[in-house]
Amino acid sequence: MKIKGFKTAAVAAGIRYADRLDLGLIVSDEPAVTAGAFTTNQVKAAPVVLDMERLKQGRAQAILVNSGCANACTGEAGMQAALATGNCAASLLNIAEEMVQLSSTGVIGDQLNVTAIEKAMPALVAGLSADNFELVAKAIMTTDTVSKTAYRTVVIGDQEVNFMGMAKGAGMIMPNMATMLAFVLTDARISFPQLYKSLLHGVERTFNRITIDGDTSTNDMVLVMANGAAGNPWIDEDDSNEQKIFQETLGDLLKDLALQIVADGEGATKFITIRVCGARDEQDGKQIARTIANSNLVKTAFFGEDANWGRIMAAMGRSGVRICPDRVDISFGEVLIVKDGLGQGKEAERAATALLKDKDIVVTIDLKDGNQCTEIYTCDFSIDYVKINADYRS
Amino acid sequence: MKIKGFKTAAVAAGIRYADRLDLGLIVSDEPAVTAGAFTTNQVKAAPVVLDMERLKQGRAQAILVNSGCANACTGEAGMQAALATGNCAASLLNIAEEMVQLSSTGVIGDQLNVTAIEKAMPALVAGLSADNFELVAKAIMTTDTVSKTAYRTVVIGDQEVNFMGMAKGAGMIMPNMATMLAFVLTDARISFPQLYKSLLHGVERTFNRITIDGDTSTNDMVLVMANGAAGNPWIDEDDSNEQKIFQETLGDLLKDLALQIVADGEGATKFITIRVCGARDEQDGKQIARTIANSNLVKTAFFGEDANWGRIMAAMGRSGVRICPDRVDISFGEVLIVKDGLGQGKEAERAATALLKDKDIVVTIDLKDGNQCTEIYTCDFSIDYVKINADYRS
Repeated sequence: MKIKGFKTAAVAAGIRYADRLDLGLIVSDEPAVTAGAFTTNQVKAAPVVLDMERLKQGRAQAILVNSGCANACTGEAGMQAALATGNCAASLLNIAEEMVQLSSTGVIGDQLNVTAIEKAMPALVAGLSADNFELVAKAIMTTDTVSKTAYRTVVIGDQEVNFMGMAKGAGMIMPNMATMLAFVLTDARISFPQLYKSLLHGVERTFNRITIDGDTSTNDMVLVMANGAAGNPWIDEDDSNEQKIFQETLGDLLKDLALQIVADGEGATKFITIRVCGARDEQDGKQIARTIANSNLVKTAFFGEDANWGRIMAAMGRSGVRICPDRVDISFGEVLIVKDGLGQGKEAERAATALLKDKDIVVTIDLKDGNQCTEIYTCDFSIDYVKINADYRS
Repeated sequence: MKIKGFKTAAVAAGIRYADRLDLGLIVSDEPAVTAGAFTTNQVKAAPVVLDMERLKQGRAQAILVNSGCANACTGEAGMQAALATGNCAASLLNIAEEMVQLSSTGVIGDQLNVTAIEKAMPALVAGLSADNFELVAKAIMTTDTVSKTAYRTVVIGDQEVNFMGMAKGAGMIMPNMATMLAFVLTDARISFPQLYKSLLHGVERTFNRITIDGDTSTNDMVLVMANGAAGNPWIDEDDSNEQKIFQETLGDLLKDLALQIVADGEGATKFITIRVCGARDEQDGKQIARTIANSNLVKTAFFGEDANWGRIMAAMGRSGVRICPDRVDISFGEVLIVKDGLGQGKEAERAATALLKDKDIVVTIDLKDGNQCTEIYTCDFSIDYVKINADYRS
């Protein structure tokens, strides 16, 4: 898919490794309405700090993104490095430097290789085209094993409106109000308040519902740029029909990207949906689901294809949410394995164990305490996760 | 060591496996002042519920403990099983059943094999002797690779007072107000309020400061029995000299046991002390230390002997405690690797990496934000942890 008015490019700048795509550029012909959601980690990378400040204007025209270095915990030098690379891009693109959003991912604590980036910039800008979106998605990968993109088209008014999104992330994933890197481009015509509202609505239900290892990164961000090239009727009213279509489509695309991140979790062999029903409110349900999804014991049991529901009960019990243990039902897929807090015997365990051979597993917990249902998406915890993270920097 | 007035025994009752010590008994000749600290997990095993109720009297005469089955999530049948085994012990010992404390550890969700325990009881009671303490410590092991005991002797008044303690636990360890199983026997003469106070004081500073995998068990308990046989001057006043000696000695013994648990953490290859200094208050320091100690990324980096301080900064940043990232110092042993939030370069990293080859590692974080120092003890996260927990029930 191409979207009118957006061009992208990627090159191998040698930021950490030679001959590996590691620098990407996304440019809108005209300033685009742009909204962002950023990490809640107090330790924020230099580009995150800069972007948050710049996005107060609600507009941007370019995103410059590198892998191989997070530019986090790099102090004043790191901020100067971010400014310098942004400035270099802005002058070659002939736009104001405040219109450049910066994004970095990789090892925390290393200083950014500004020289390498500046040297690569002319080729990067020269390579801008409408066809390189998938290449940029590759350039932002770190421990990802596959690149992650998603596309959508809807009709708003009589106009076809297009979306394309990319994301990266496989470890240090428990986004909280934001995620690892994700960039979404659309040609929708939409006001900043409506764009921002739709982004937060979508992020809360997608990226904020995934966890791989319970660790929140210093560099998480989701940026969405809307350049208006579709010429649809302006989306600028709460709860208008157009706003609803836009929000739903954006949310659907964000969920697609978020689930791709989980499926590519470091070392993951299973995709697991933890669905908590019958909660008193959504917050309670989310907290219980998240505690289960982050339990190493639950996750290693899934890796071992062991229907060890006792670990799920134990995780619920320490979640901080008041529960009635003797009212809880747990199902693996369609197999009811715990009813009213009690195991349903060998036959149920055998059926559940058989089901755990699948790659895609849904665990449903019914608290029978209210009407709220919520889902968190996670993966299992394998030997490879440990191997990957014991060796990551070498 | 022997303590006058206490006898112990252990047998292989075949609760889960054949020919493996799995049932232990601790008996005081006379009713002993007894205090307990129990799991804060809302999902509490039947014996925990029963013990908490019985300990309201502040007295107990026996502890019956089994491994191989946690008797948790077992409903009314599990409670009846706990009552039946306690009753069986009480009648053979010729004591009131309320004087028996029960304790179970093993797989959650399985029903307790009452028949096996009742069948083994006569041999267990017949085997009671002053010399079997180490055997009971073996009988309570599950994934533990070594049994854990500690002994202390102090003089209170003119009297020698003795302590002996045992503990078990290697996984599902992040005690919160309590721990995995630990039993302490002393011949001190002490009132219940002073015993209870000393226990809580000790547990808060020892078992509540360790974490192996962030999971809190359904069966955690620490019991301390004081039978008074030492004949020391009664310890029954706050802050008396005797109370202080007692509290300090008990705390020291509890720390010894708690650290033995960490050192035997499932799959652990390193013993890691996370020391947070310069915190505004102890709660803040504890929360930061615990977030670091529970980060899978920090723990896998230690396993990989990688001085990856960026992961420590990222964990601090999501701990929920307000910090000033650009004021933080981090040292590995004596090596200052981060100063004012910035990495100290290749030389410091090389020195830190060399130091990570040790088995015993102290990480010191100085927040420079206050005067409080606190420590949390943990271990690294290895491939073997995943192997052990993917296979635990098979």
